[in-house]
Amino acid sequence: MKRSKAPAESPGSLPKAGVSRRAMLTALGAGGLGVAAGALGQSAVSGAEAKPAPVNDVVEFYGEHQAGIATPAQDRMHMAAFDLTTQDRAEVIALLQDWTAAIEHMVRGADVGEFGATGGSYDAPPEDTGEALDLSASHLTVTIGFGRSFFATQHGPRFGLAGRMPESLIELPHFPGDALEESHSGGDLVVQACADDPQVAVHAVRNLARIGFGKARVRWSQIGFGRTSSTSTAQITPRNLFGFKDGTANLKAEEQAALEKHVWVSGLDGGQAWMNGGSYLVARRIRMHIETWDRSPLGDQENIFGRTKREGAPLSGGTEFTEPDFAMAGRSGPMMPVDSHVALAHPSANNGVQMLRRGFNYTDGSDGLGRLDAGLFFIAFVVDPRTHYVPMQNAMAKNDALSEYLKHTGSGLFAVPPGIKLGEYLGQGLFA
Amino acid sequence: MKRSKAPAESPGSLPKAGVSRRAMLTALGAGGLGVAAGALGQSAVSGAEAKPAPVNDVVEFYGEHQAGIATPAQDRMHMAAFDLTTQDRAEVIALLQDWTAAIEHMVRGADVGEFGATGGSYDAPPEDTGEALDLSASHLTVTIGFGRSFFATQHGPRFGLAGRMPESLIELPHFPGDALEESHSGGDLVVQACADDPQVAVHAVRNLARIGFGKARVRWSQIGFGRTSSTSTAQITPRNLFGFKDGTANLKAEEQAALEKHVWVSGLDGGQAWMNGGSYLVARRIRMHIETWDRSPLGDQENIFGRTKREGAPLSGGTEFTEPDFAMAGRSGPMMPVDSHVALAHPSANNGVQMLRRGFNYTDGSDGLGRLDAGLFFIAFVVDPRTHYVPMQNAMAKNDALSEYLKHTGSGLFAVPPGIKLGEYLGQGLFA
Repeated sequence: MKRSKAPAESPGSLPKAGVSRRAMLTALGAGGLGVAAGALGQSAVSGAEAKPAPVNDVVEFYGEHQAGIATPAQDRMHMAAFDLTTQDRAEVIALLQDWTAAIEHMVRGADVGEFGATGGSYDAPPEDTGEALDLSASHLTVTIGFGRSFFATQHGPRFGLAGRMPESLIELPHFPGDALEESHSGGDLVVQACADDPQVAVHAVRNLARIGFGKARVRWSQIGFGRTSSTSTAQITPRNLFGFKDGTANLKAEEQAALEKHVWVSGLDGGQAWMNGGSYLVARRIRMHIETWDRSPLGDQENIFGRTKREGAPLSGGTEFTEPDFAMAGRSGPMMPVDSHVALAHPSANNGVQMLRRGFNYTDGSDGLGRLDAGLFFIAFVVDPRTHYVPMQNAMAKNDALSEYLKHTGSGLFAVPPGIKLGEYLGQGLFA
Repeated sequence: MKRSKAPAESPGSLPKAGVSRRAMLTALGAGGLGVAAGALGQSAVSGAEAKPAPVNDVVEFYGEHQAGIATPAQDRMHMAAFDLTTQDRAEVIALLQDWTAAIEHMVRGADVGEFGATGGSYDAPPEDTGEALDLSASHLTVTIGFGRSFFATQHGPRFGLAGRMPESLIELPHFPGDALEESHSGGDLVVQACADDPQVAVHAVRNLARIGFGKARVRWSQIGFGRTSSTSTAQITPRNLFGFKDGTANLKAEEQAALEKHVWVSGLDGGQAWMNGGSYLVARRIRMHIETWDRSPLGDQENIFGRTKREGAPLSGGTEFTEPDFAMAGRSGPMMPVDSHVALAHPSANNGVQMLRRGFNYTDGSDGLGRLDAGLFFIAFVVDPRTHYVPMQNAMAKNDALSEYLKHTGSGLFAVPPGIKLGEYLGQGLFA
């Protein structure tokens, strides 16, 4: 019942999606004949013109690592966690294959599917939901990961994956002050979509959710309106909702050796070779008590962070990227307060470990108590959460002067498989 | 206890905010002396460099009408409704004066207050929360309006405003299918902040909320991630989450005569001369059943809208901006279905009335049932909701084929006062 074919992929020099000439057949459905005939000319004419001229905003999908980790952080994010409703291994594999195909289309600005948003039959639902039709690729990246519950429930292993769960994919401990909500935590699968245009990121998550219908349901989803970390030396450091620059000392995509050490899994990860080239995604929804913060003096704020508010320089002097001098004495104690955020987060206080942070500011309406519900959706990629997240978060939750202004309301830890080559699907190594 | 002064306003050719040389005094607070001394040089040096080079993205604040209505629709929005907790008329006037001063700073990219985010005393909370420090004005507009409850409660008039409520500021009727939630509806005051950068919009709402502390509390707030309407002929028509172009036939800023007729209050509005030059803001939070929609055939989707999906052309033929021909016959009835969205929304079906729509796509996490909570935050500005909104919404809720896929979960109607001149405050006419 194919009626006409409007090219679903971006025009110009981008790689072509699977275009099928048989789709040019103009078989008309039995219903809505008049309308179909009337609109046919339109669709055929406008299809090729619908996308804007290609711009260089496509992030390479294939590679050793998944995109969206060391990729320079885009400005907007939509993340969703899914729970599988199928118990069938073959269906899970099919879902990952379908997701991979859809992601491969979307990241280069193409519609999902062979016929896309408008090129298919009038009598069938479109393969793509269409809200990104006029938008470019917008540096979209879609990164997926597996939660502990993907591998096993309390009733035992799932999907024939007994013995395949990496040791690093722990149950995160309860940290001091945690106030986690089930509705913002966990999940069998996670999808992180980042893009310069939020509609492109939302479109990606929504189409994967649609493909998953009957197999997976949305457990939680989160919009991040603005990035809070730089992950490239070419980016300026953005500010969090406390008004401070965030991520000055973050790992950068250009620091290959540090990424190998602190982000990418290599060698065997607890015997799980399928994770080589992958990473672990820590997600924490951190509500900020911005009203309380806003009533605290500037001097207190700077002491709590350990940096100046405007420049982001360490209180021991210098400019934003000057290394803090924790030994420098002030009139009453060190210039860098020992309980400052910078002092506690610094590698020197954490056995030299570093994280690749990739978080986003969020605001989710109001809290019913007359205040905005806003904060930081913290995202970090690490080689092993046992060494690279848990100790630091424990120390911070106990000692960080900033903790008084934070409440962790959501949490997730996901094993992010490596990147793939053409013809493979995301997570394929796990099922091999 | 002023310590140093970092200019709070944007550099370059923009108008200067009130800079005070007395702030150059470097009186040091008694506490945190070492830190203060250490950071002083930093702050003084970096202050003038902190903002990026000025770009031409400032929307004029003063004028006959408030900005943010006929202004070309920005891509991002944060809207918040507030309830007043004070019962004191003078405090309300002071709040409106303080808000006006803050808005006037923020829309030109300047910090709130005399000393801004970092220029004040170390011993006092900063006057600006700081998260927009490195961002330009980003075409920020902040538009305020008054709800019915601003004028009176069940106990009688408030703030000495007996007899000042316009007749047009009605209680909206219950429309068929309404499923309104208190937590997304109503409010004494509304603040609409729109900008190219969402952090700039959130910063604006957050700082007004902060200024209102003790006098006003946030009742609800809503992030819109992408505009769904063009309000200028220079803009391309964006798409809603059904994947269709939205707002093709919207009123445009360039259509002065139509704006005078359909948007701006003129003459006396039920005897309320203070509303001349103002308008009425209708806000409706419309949840879309996107999962159901995504399973409906392309032909049904186009018949429901009355337009082709890719081009947005009416089903009677032509291109996006071709006028629909409601008389054109198809094989079984008119080419434009009588229950299509376009047929029911067209001025010819609504006594010739038009609205200036200025809505935004939203997604607010998931709904607890495995689905995304997403839809359209509908915003329209009209000269009188009794003639320009209620009849159309009644007709649509009853007859529109699209209604099956929509659920109105939030609602607000606000009287938006006119613009002001230098030295006046927003809403001043109401208190004159």
